[in-house]
Amino acid sequence: MEQLKQKIPVAVLGATGMVGQQYVALLADHPWFEISLVAASARSAGLRYGEAISSRWYPEAPLPDRIKNYTLIDALDSAAVARKAKLVFSALELSDKDELRKVENAYARAGVAVVSNASAHRDTEDVPMIIPEINHHHADIIPLQRQRREWSGCIAVKPNCSLQSYLTPLFALMQAGYEISDVVVTTLQAVSGAGYPGVPSLDIIDNVIPFINGEEEKTEQEPLKILGEIQDGRFTPRSGIRISAHCNRVPVRDGHSACVSVRFAHAKPKFDRVIEVWNNFRSAPQELRLPSAPTQPIIYLDDEARPQPKKDRMRHNGMAITVGRLRACPVFDIKFVGLSHNTIRGAAGGGILNAELLVAKNLV
Amino acid sequence: MEQLKQKIPVAVLGATGMVGQQYVALLADHPWFEISLVAASARSAGLRYGEAISSRWYPEAPLPDRIKNYTLIDALDSAAVARKAKLVFSALELSDKDELRKVENAYARAGVAVVSNASAHRDTEDVPMIIPEINHHHADIIPLQRQRREWSGCIAVKPNCSLQSYLTPLFALMQAGYEISDVVVTTLQAVSGAGYPGVPSLDIIDNVIPFINGEEEKTEQEPLKILGEIQDGRFTPRSGIRISAHCNRVPVRDGHSACVSVRFAHAKPKFDRVIEVWNNFRSAPQELRLPSAPTQPIIYLDDEARPQPKKDRMRHNGMAITVGRLRACPVFDIKFVGLSHNTIRGAAGGGILNAELLVAKNLV
Amino acid sequence: MEQLKQKIPVAVLGATGMVGQQYVALLADHPWFEISLVAASARSAGLRYGEAISSRWYPEAPLPDRIKNYTLIDALDSAAVARKAKLVFSALELSDKDELRKVENAYARAGVAVVSNASAHRDTEDVPMIIPEINHHHADIIPLQRQRREWSGCIAVKPNCSLQSYLTPLFALMQAGYEISDVVVTTLQAVSGAGYPGVPSLDIIDNVIPFINGEEEKTEQEPLKILGEIQDGRFTPRSGIRISAHCNRVPVRDGHSACVSVRFAHAKPKFDRVIEVWNNFRSAPQELRLPSAPTQPIIYLDDEARPQPKKDRMRHNGMAITVGRLRACPVFDIKFVGLSHNTIRGAAGGGILNAELLVAKNLV
Amino acid sequence: MEQLKQKIPVAVLGATGMVGQQYVALLADHPWFEISLVAASARSAGLRYGEAISSRWYPEAPLPDRIKNYTLIDALDSAAVARKAKLVFSALELSDKDELRKVENAYARAGVAVVSNASAHRDTEDVPMIIPEINHHHADIIPLQRQRREWSGCIAVKPNCSLQSYLTPLFALMQAGYEISDVVVTTLQAVSGAGYPGVPSLDIIDNVIPFINGEEEKTEQEPLKILGEIQDGRFTPRSGIRISAHCNRVPVRDGHSACVSVRFAHAKPKFDRVIEVWNNFRSAPQELRLPSAPTQPIIYLDDEARPQPKKDRMRHNGMAITVGRLRACPVFDIKFVGLSHNTIRGAAGGGILNAELLVAKNLV
Repeated sequence: MEQLKQKIPVAVLGATGMVGQQYVALLADHPWFEISLVAASARSAGLRYGEAISSRWYPEAPLPDRIKNYTLIDALDSAAVARKAKLVFSALELSDKDELRKVENAYARAGVAVVSNASAHRDTEDVPMIIPEINHHHADIIPLQRQRREWSGCIAVKPNCSLQSYLTPLFALMQAGYEISDVVVTTLQAVSGAGYPGVPSLDIIDNVIPFINGEEEKTEQEPLKILGEIQDGRFTPRSGIRISAHCNRVPVRDGHSACVSVRFAHAKPKFDRVIEVWNNFRSAPQELRLPSAPTQPIIYLDDEARPQPKKDRMRHNGMAITVGRLRACPVFDIKFVGLSHNTIRGAAGGGILNAELLVAKNLV
Repeated sequence: MEQLKQKIPVAVLGATGMVGQQYVALLADHPWFEISLVAASARSAGLRYGEAISSRWYPEAPLPDRIKNYTLIDALDSAAVARKAKLVFSALELSDKDELRKVENAYARAGVAVVSNASAHRDTEDVPMIIPEINHHHADIIPLQRQRREWSGCIAVKPNCSLQSYLTPLFALMQAGYEISDVVVTTLQAVSGAGYPGVPSLDIIDNVIPFINGEEEKTEQEPLKILGEIQDGRFTPRSGIRISAHCNRVPVRDGHSACVSVRFAHAKPKFDRVIEVWNNFRSAPQELRLPSAPTQPIIYLDDEARPQPKKDRMRHNGMAITVGRLRACPVFDIKFVGLSHNTIRGAAGGGILNAELLVAKNLV
Repeated sequence: MEQLKQKIPVAVLGATGMVGQQYVALLADHPWFEISLVAASARSAGLRYGEAISSRWYPEAPLPDRIKNYTLIDALDSAAVARKAKLVFSALELSDKDELRKVENAYARAGVAVVSNASAHRDTEDVPMIIPEINHHHADIIPLQRQRREWSGCIAVKPNCSLQSYLTPLFALMQAGYEISDVVVTTLQAVSGAGYPGVPSLDIIDNVIPFINGEEEKTEQEPLKILGEIQDGRFTPRSGIRISAHCNRVPVRDGHSACVSVRFAHAKPKFDRVIEVWNNFRSAPQELRLPSAPTQPIIYLDDEARPQPKKDRMRHNGMAITVGRLRACPVFDIKFVGLSHNTIRGAAGGGILNAELLVAKNLV
Repeated sequence: MEQLKQKIPVAVLGATGMVGQQYVALLADHPWFEISLVAASARSAGLRYGEAISSRWYPEAPLPDRIKNYTLIDALDSAAVARKAKLVFSALELSDKDELRKVENAYARAGVAVVSNASAHRDTEDVPMIIPEINHHHADIIPLQRQRREWSGCIAVKPNCSLQSYLTPLFALMQAGYEISDVVVTTLQAVSGAGYPGVPSLDIIDNVIPFINGEEEKTEQEPLKILGEIQDGRFTPRSGIRISAHCNRVPVRDGHSACVSVRFAHAKPKFDRVIEVWNNFRSAPQELRLPSAPTQPIIYLDDEARPQPKKDRMRHNGMAITVGRLRACPVFDIKFVGLSHNTIRGAAGGGILNAELLVAKNLV
């Protein structure tokens, strides 16, 4: 990918929320994108971004001075946003999904490319849900999406954060010829996954919560669409693979872990082969040299007690998946542990990688 | 069980360790047992117990004043101990298992009933590994053990803490006629399971460790002996059930959680039936009214976000197993969450219940 | 105090909040009081208490079955409450203090004795703010309060939780003849002090917050009223003592710690004398044998690393103050560490002790 | 400072410990220094560094590949080390201070410049204890030290981590003409300050420990030497300032906070002036442009709830001190909160800055 002549103006919708903040942090020095405006709920509109954030800035990197002085726009005013941004990152937190779909559709109609973290459009039959290392070709539905809906813009979404720590490793094996039939996965998820204020401290100090509303359903269903194919102008979910998820909240700031047991449908790779497949896995983001792509998307850690959230979540700027503890499963074939940074790879970083993919495919 | 005429003098071996302390706390007002001495390593021998413990007292209940002034005996001096105790609770932490077996054997030879938390004798073919609600009848091997080994005492052990939060619920279902063929379980284990000093705080604040040395092997193998039968004077493990375990350390003080997926071999109970089986499950400890037995050993919590360690570990004084989140498993048949207090039910409380069972069976 | 003929019916206002829950837990088996109703905001009125609480029950003790089925009343309906309760524990969380004063006044006018945890009336010149071990005689203003305001009920309040861990130890010294002129205190406060949902977990995991809104002012000012006297029918604050407070929120569930440096105005007691004064301190609650009074209100711990929240907060059912680390202060005279349970001694337990005092003084 | 012609070869002593690891991490791309060898106890000697560290690598930055393969030398073999290093960073953890002094002296005698984190030489009358922003001129004693002791090398030490979060802010005020007479400080210290394994997790989850062995003495005494002067060839401590310290361990990974009350001896600056003094404070490290010097060593945060360890410890790569919450002290004159990263500014980073100062002063 050669250098862009000039940066693409982008907006962050829901910029005051936790994922919105992470977008602002990660886009600060982005080579392709430049934040031209920040938008949030009508309540915050008119405030300077720095004021609205006040002491609630969450990312490790400091809030960029330039953005601090931006005046927040009402995120529902898609016309105003569309005048200043060609692409928007939607981190809106509307509880009404119909309402949210309408807002995102209005942007697409106004000619804006929407890359969304929200779950409203994940089930929509002609909206791609993309993990660029897995299903980059799903973006190819966008011309059809535009034509059918008479949009000059478009919408692409990213999946739930909970599945990012194990789906790419599973896909790498499938792509190498080792079909998978059954997966039982237990996630240990960080509190940042619930946003801010999110999980009350009284609920999590010296405690574990074995339930996250809606999370197990997403963890079980979304992979089927991501691993599926475009047929007759819509996405058909992958069949032949069954996933069972147990999702837990644990007292960790960032980084979702997953304990995974896997049964192969036919051929069973040896351990060495599994590790080789993982460490050598490369895909479109690496081939296209997308700016946010980790050079090695899956890293196998040769240490019996890894990966660990605190120690491994920031590998490749929080964009790599770390895996470890590959061993035989007495019930299925293999088991392992996966880890990814939920607000970077699993949220804002994953969204930016999606946007980079759209640009590389000339879809913005 | 009627009241004993006079209390049985007992000793705690390894009384300064974390499990040893929990024994001291739980035995403080025990109706059948009275601590006649406390023993520890030669290094501490001669110290008053209160001095040796100093500020390292771990249980919630205060250190009993009476015991504070006991002088610690060398735990290797089984003859001295045997003069003052008819039963010992072994919470010895010797890393050399052969050595540990020799020590425990010496006590049995000296006429003492040994109830051990240590793992040294768990594989021994004529030593019962007992969870009284499950395999109380395994204690019936003791007369044979005595005869064969020419012991006037005996040895019984309890299993690892990690399996206590799910094995009794599984057994209740098996006993009700629902044979189980496959179990995938992920544990989220408290730091107290590693003893003291145990897990360094730098390893666990804002972190999860997806590995506990030897724990997965125990979690997978020990249930087979517990569910097995006495054949030809030794224990034959249960066949036909396969268990796969993922064991994690999480930032929780006490209480091991387990996320469990289960496949039944034949008949599959409906959810209502499963809950009914669990809530109505009673066994020998309840029928014999053992003093430490929870009146309801398995409690199903009808709340989508329970059980939780902080909120549920102390049910029935830490002796009940709480379960929740019963739901369909897309891969197997059902899934659920179990929880037990690892240093009470899973360690000292479980040991005391074993001792009570031996007394009730006239084996002490 | 002899046994009451029959229990006094009481209501808990704000019963669904964290302090309200703690009241419900602590009153479960109270010898003098019986909860006749629970009240909360209009929004919850009509719900059964158990439904309204759902999974948000906070105390260690279980939610009593009897109370679970109570129907919540609107706490603003003082007439309805007054028909069924002679005394109310107010744990209302209205942000408008004028409004709150009106509500509590309405109860007093309706003939109800109000014991309040709220801060609305703490500055009111004829409302006593009581720590029974310190200023039990402040309750003697109540006849005047009634006469002046034409109330058949009355209002008494308890002070902020942050000062409970050090004010009683300071008072014990003052009462023994050691006047105090200067105090610099730094508190390390538990998250339960902020109620529920209270402190977001993202703000406190691996973190300290060196600010609690309004807390330092309360910590510096309220002791002056408590240590003051009734003059001309109103409270005159104690002069001659200056307090400077630094208040921090730390990742602890329950238990406020305080690091205290003290300068005496005149005579300086030796360390042995200080400890003697503390351990022997008894006051009205002990003399009157109030049911919730700790038999020893101040406990000096002779261990260089104590008191600690996890280990010491539950002394005497959470009602005792533990102190430790008495040593010379290079700037002032002495320094020490104090600890109290913020939701028991510092909130609901302290309120109940106040109510017991009012009963013992025939003011209910 | 112009660029060095070639890098100075340095060794890290105690390289496997936590502070030693932090040295290895921070020196990875240092412009002046190059690690030529790593040394540790005899027990580890001969192992490759990566093997010895295994999974115990603590810093956020990854373990540099180059260093991973270094073979560990016995740190007591000063002759071997001296052949390959001109300067050593001593992070040795010998409990015997006499022994430690001997080891460090042997290095100085062998011609090596020793920059030590250990406390052995902090009281030595001709060894400077340096915070470069405060007492850079204390390094000027080194020629005398060499002459008197017939060393071709030299020794300089850094002070305890606990005082770094408030001493530089106090010094900035003193240097601006505001003499200080009294300081009462309470620290809230991170667990990494205790090294590894350090604080057991059972001691700190849901807890605070109000005691750190020896820490209050260091916090009260060391500033007097640092603020003192060279007289008659030895350091004379500053008089006229009294410090009282309360030191606590809190459940935070990195970052020591300090709550500070200050009385001025004479002139009392207004708040605006204090903030101006802090924000504009610059000293020798900034003037000499030492590579590790923060461009702004003291940063005042204009937010009522800051500084916070998680959010502010990494300012200027962990080398800046953040302060906040400046307000009036009802007992003294002002109070504020300070924060510094204990293993960077307070340990390895501070040591490297000291070494840079020695190089800039041509003392290596």
